[in-house]
Order: sequence, then structure tokens, then C-alpha cells
Amino acid sequence: MTNSKLIYLDNNATTKVDEHVIETMMPYFSESYGNPSSIYKFGGKNSKALKEAREKMKDFFGANNSKEIFFTASGSESANMAIRGVLSSDKSMNHLITTKVEHPCVLNTHKQLEKEGYKVTYIGVNSVGELNLEELYNAVTDKTALVSCMYANNETGTTFPVKEIAEKVKSINPKTKVFVDGVQAAGKIDINVKETQIDMMGVSGHKFHAPKGIGSLYVKSSTLITPLIIGGHQESGKRAGTENVPFIVGMAEAAQLAKDSLNYEITHVKKLRDKLENGLLSKIYNARLNSASKNRVPNTTNIGFEYVEGELILLNMDDYGICASSGSACTSGSLDPSHVLKAMGVPFTSLHGSIRFSLSRFTTEEEIDYTLEKMPIIIDKVTSISPFQKELRELKERKGII
Amino acid sequence: MTNSKLIYLDNNATTKVDEHVIETMMPYFSESYGNPSSIYKFGGKNSKALKEAREKMKDFFGANNSKEIFFTASGSESANMAIRGVLSSDKSMNHLITTKVEHPCVLNTHKQLEKEGYKVTYIGVNSVGELNLEELYNAVTDKTALVSCMYANNETGTTFPVKEIAEKVKSINPKTKVFVDGVQAAGKIDINVKETQIDMMGVSGHKFHAPKGIGSLYVKSSTLITPLIIGGHQESGKRAGTENVPFIVGMAEAAQLAKDSLNYEITHVKKLRDKLENGLLSKIYNARLNSASKNRVPNTTNIGFEYVEGELILLNMDDYGICASSGSACTSGSLDPSHVLKAMGVPFTSLHGSIRFSLSRFTTEEEIDYTLEKMPIIIDKVTSISPFQKELRELKERKGII
Repeated sequence: MTNSKLIYLDNNATTKVDEHVIETMMPYFSESYGNPSSIYKFGGKNSKALKEAREKMKDFFGANNSKEIFFTASGSESANMAIRGVLSSDKSMNHLITTKVEHPCVLNTHKQLEKEGYKVTYIGVNSVGELNLEELYNAVTDKTALVSCMYANNETGTTFPVKEIAEKVKSINPKTKVFVDGVQAAGKIDINVKETQIDMMGVSGHKFHAPKGIGSLYVKSSTLITPLIIGGHQESGKRAGTENVPFIVGMAEAAQLAKDSLNYEITHVKKLRDKLENGLLSKIYNARLNSASKNRVPNTTNIGFEYVEGELILLNMDDYGICASSGSACTSGSLDPSHVLKAMGVPFTSLHGSIRFSLSRFTTEEEIDYTLEKMPIIIDKVTSISPFQKELRELKERKGII
Repeated sequence: MTNSKLIYLDNNATTKVDEHVIETMMPYFSESYGNPSSIYKFGGKNSKALKEAREKMKDFFGANNSKEIFFTASGSESANMAIRGVLSSDKSMNHLITTKVEHPCVLNTHKQLEKEGYKVTYIGVNSVGELNLEELYNAVTDKTALVSCMYANNETGTTFPVKEIAEKVKSINPKTKVFVDGVQAAGKIDINVKETQIDMMGVSGHKFHAPKGIGSLYVKSSTLITPLIIGGHQESGKRAGTENVPFIVGMAEAAQLAKDSLNYEITHVKKLRDKLENGLLSKIYNARLNSASKNRVPNTTNIGFEYVEGELILLNMDDYGICASSGSACTSGSLDPSHVLKAMGVPFTSLHGSIRFSLSRFTTEEEIDYTLEKMPIIIDKVTSISPFQKELRELKERKGII
């Protein structure tokens, strides 16, 4: 069965570019295409466009100064630039702290840094993905150069109290820097860095309806970093390469739209997410919630379906035109269970059958109703061919269904 | 005086995005926006688009296998990725060779590597920018890890015999890797790496009518590199970050258009460039050619106007709507004379007054005629306020004008 319907519930993987963003970008391809570094007016116009975009991103981050905003090509580049960039300044501090549930761009960078001689402490999470704060604070020493943690988890949506973390870490060691991977928080909750102790925060445009291939990094003006990409004078010498004017202008527009839609996110999007979540949990007997109930971004839910395979669920959903994820798209191509759900201690029975649903401001109630109608049919079909029939029957009995 | 005319003769700084490229990209913003890593068909379509784009780039480079093609966000990233990536594999070889006229992304990376303990030999050029090959070959030792040089110079258009260089370097030390910065050659001459000994070559989309913010790196399959941006599995684990699908597809289209236009470049574009060059040299008594006469890409000429300031010339050209550059746009914002022209030994008298004109397949004969009409007026005006009136008079006398 194929279906021309498209119910896109995978907005943590990537989003549709907002039509207003496309409109904003278009003139910069073949009309106002000058190099912003040029001396003539045709290039200078683009230099002005960059300046305005930087101001808008400053507002999006809630930064004090637009000089604290750098443009990159992705959330991954932002993270690599922040982590590598801040470490080069002081080689004497050789201890790093991060969490077990970070995105691969943070996690794998730390694994590489271990090979280069750094000691890394990986902090655990509880069963709904909330960070073990005591463990984190106890790990900070006078050798701790950097604490890196995410604002919101890509797979569960669970948030970390990053402002509190930054404050507490600095109270233990004022020299320790704090990097926050804000990729999955930006556009969903207010990422306001103002009056926080956060040194650096990265975001990715394509998670909030800007195109893929553009990101931004906030670096507090008192925090010194060296460039990851060395070359010309662009981005105050911190990131070489001719500026991607259309995408920068587009991301700034997307950021403003996202900022203006934050209330819509925490009301309407959350309402739809909750309707989906409650509906799935009540309609499907082998469904269990993996996400935190309180500390969570409004658009995400992660539901484990016990004794079935996530990939099989996704393929069946695809036949109905419903797009979602099992684990992070960034680590797909592998059949290993998600490192995030493993760190949360999600039981083996639902580790492989966990599905992330992530909504956006373009998600409609009709789409959620359709998904709630089809998911029980899909799970029914998939459980019917599960090799765990005995266990499924026991689960039904425990739930009082049979 | 302001002018609504736009005569864009700065195509080595950046180019207009071809309308066909824009058309090719458009569906990937808000229609086919799925993450190529996703399991569902909506994402899989984009994975297929990436595969086709990689094939086209393979043909553009003349590579043997599309697995040798990596996508980056710029020529600068390609260079950083290539140089850093190949060095990490063997730390015992600590000598690098590059040239004095490289783009800042190569030159400044080498300056940083010197700080990190590498020894670097910078090879010089002759008065028209041609590389001192003897000096280069004599510099290769058993410790030489990498030779990095450009295919064509951004400021003069002068080309280096990169295929011969790679062959000769490898014959001296087979373990030495060769990186070619192909940014200013791609789309102007055939960059065919097939049957060459070149290990890596970088290009930048926005120099051949793709957008700013996309680049590519060819890495010979037998050459091992480590990633610059660490994270997910994208680009065979060599470059993390969700793929910029629209720009990748757009660059591949631009590459195909450029490949199909190579004959046009070496005939029509060259004819217009030669008309401009010969016209300027014959009409303006204090004009002298900085570029090589033979070894040169077809679209570029660099003309020094003696005893005047380049910035002043450019501002006056801007008033007539003519866009060109003095030195590289990537190093602008600085009043230092071009490091390229300095390395060529361009005399002080025209070092500050050298202008780069760079054409494209969109340049028309009418535009060249207009430029040839206005430039003498501009240079006349600028020389009239030059503090070097005595020297200018002597120059006129030497040329038999007065």
C-alpha cells in the first residue's frame, strides 16, 4: 500500500522551510548576490543584510551584543567550533564533563578528545532522561575546562536546567566554561541567554523552519575561542568562508518567526502533542512513555511499544504517510538501540520499539486525529507477528485487557 | 553620481546563482524537505537526490568514484578539512610545503600549524605569479607530509601545473600528500583529477554559479583523512551535519552547467577578457599587466595602474556601476597591499593600484565596451589627484605620449 498523504511528525529530524523564509532568501541568489566583503555598493548591501540578520539572531538568543553571534553551517559545526575553540586557549585544564545522552556531534567530539589526552566524565540520566545534577556538580574539579550539555534532548524532548547548571558549575570553578547544545530547544522554548552564566550556545536553522546547512553559535563576549575553520576575516576572524547570505538572512527570519510563535508552541503545539501522547498511551496497551512528563519541550513525545521492532513500526507508518523516527536520524543506518534510551535504562522490551513523534507549528489537529486512528492498527499488525506472543499476552493480562 | 547599471566583473569574488540552479534547488526547501537519513520514503527521496548530486560532482572533478566526493560548506572548509584531515594520520612527518600566494584559508592554516610545531616552506613565484618549481621540488624531504598549492590564483588567474607538481613530488617522496585548492579553477578550466597523483582537491560552489555556503572536497580513495567536523554518520563519517540538500543538488547542477560551458569559457569569455585587457593596456598609459600571459584561467586579468590607489579606482568604478576588486575580497577590510602581488615583486608604484577584473559566462560584450569606455575617464580622474604628478609625467614621456 502506498499513500500520497504526508503526516510529518519528525520535526526534530528536520523541518519544512517556512514560505516567508524562502521569500526572504530569494533575492540573495541571483539579484543581490554580491560578496559582502566587497567595497562596492552591490556587495555592501549584503553586508548590511548580514548585520541585520545578526541583530535578529542576537534577539533570538537573548544575547547582549550582536558581536556575540557567529554564523556556521550546522548545529554540528557550532558544537565542534565551541568545544575545540574554547579548549585551545588553556591546555593546562584537561578535564571535560558531558552527558551520556548528548547528540553525536558532542559525544563523538568528546570521544576524540579522550584519544587526544583529555579526561572525560559522562554524566547519567534518570528513567525519563533528566540529568543527575548531583553527579554533575560532584564531577567538577579545578581541572575541569568545559561542561557541555544539551538544552533539550533530540529523542525524548526532555530538558536540562542549563541556566542552573551554568551557575552552579561556575560557583564551583569559575574558570570552567559551559557550552549548551541548544539545537533542540531553539524555536520550541525561550533560549534566552541573558543574565545566565552560559558561555556558548549552538543552534541549527533547519530545526526551526530555516534551511538545512545554516547554524549559529552564541559566544559570550568575555569567552575567548579560536576558529575551527581558519582563513579569511569573516565572522570576526572566527569562521572563514564567504558568508551564506541567503541562508543567514533566512535563518534570521525563521528565528524571528519562531520567537513570535513561542506562545503558540507552548499552547497549541503542546495541546496537539499531549492529545497524541495521551491517545497513544490510552489506546495501545503495550505503549509506555519514555519522555519526562514535566521538563520537556512542547513538541516532542517518545513512546515505547513493547515487544516490537521500531523499524517495522516506522515502515508501516510510512505506508500510511506518517513520518516519525526511532532514535536519532543522525545515527540512523545503524541497528544499535538508541544511546539515549539505553542511558535512561529503558527496558529491553521497549528499547527497540520506541518511536519519537515531533510536531511543529504546521502540524494540524486533523493530522493528529489521523495518526491516532492509524497507530493502533499499525501496532496491532506489528505485534501480531512479534516473536514475543507469550509476553504480550501476559502484558494484556496485567493491564486487565484479557 | 549614482548609477543603476550593474557591470559585474568580480566573478572571482562570487558569482550570480544561475537561474537553472535556483529552479533545481527550489523543491528541496518546502516540498521535499525530509532528512536524507530518515527511513521513510519522504526522506529517502532526498538520499537519492544526494547520490545523484555526488555522481555529478564526481564527473565534474573527473574522479573515479563518487565515494571520493565529500560535501562541505565552503572552499575554506574544504581546505581546512583536507590539510588538517590528512596530517592527523601520521604525526612523524612534520614538514609542510605551500606557496606564498595561497588563499588565506591555506596560508593562515599553515601559519597556525607552524605554531603547533610543523615546519613550513613557503615557495615563491615569478613576476607574473608562476610558481618556482625548482624551489618547490628541492624543498621536498622525507619529512614532507603535505604539499598544498592552488590550481589558479584568485587575484591574477595565473595557474600552477598541479598535475606535474603532484607527479614530481610523489616521485621524490611517495608518502607526501598533495592538496590542490581548485576553487578558482573549477568552472573555468577542466579540473579533471583522473590519472593524476593529486590526493585532494577542494572547490567552492559560489565561484561557479551555485550559491554561497556550499563546497566540495575530492579525496582519492587511497588517501585517508580524519573529519574536521565530528558527529553523525553523514558523508561517510567524514563530515557531520544534516546535509544541505538544496545547495548540494544546486551545486551539482551548477557543476554540470559549468562543465558544459568550458568551451564557452575558453573561447567567448577569454575573447572578452582579452578585449578588456588589451583595451585597458593600450588605452591607459599607466596600466601594466600583473597576470601571466599564458598560464592563466580565461576569465581573469589583473591590471596595475601606476601611482594611484586601488580603493579610489574601485569607488569611482562603483559610481559607474562597475564591480571589480583590488586584492582578494577575502582579505579586504585591510589596507595592506595584496600578499600575492607582493610575492610577485610587483613594483611599489602599482602595488596599491592593481585591479582584478574577473568575467563569467554572463558577461556581455556590451559590458566590456562600456568598461573600456569608462576606465580611461576614471583613471584620468584618479591620476589627476595623485600626489605622484612628477612620476606620472616621466612615465608619459617614457611612453612617448608627451
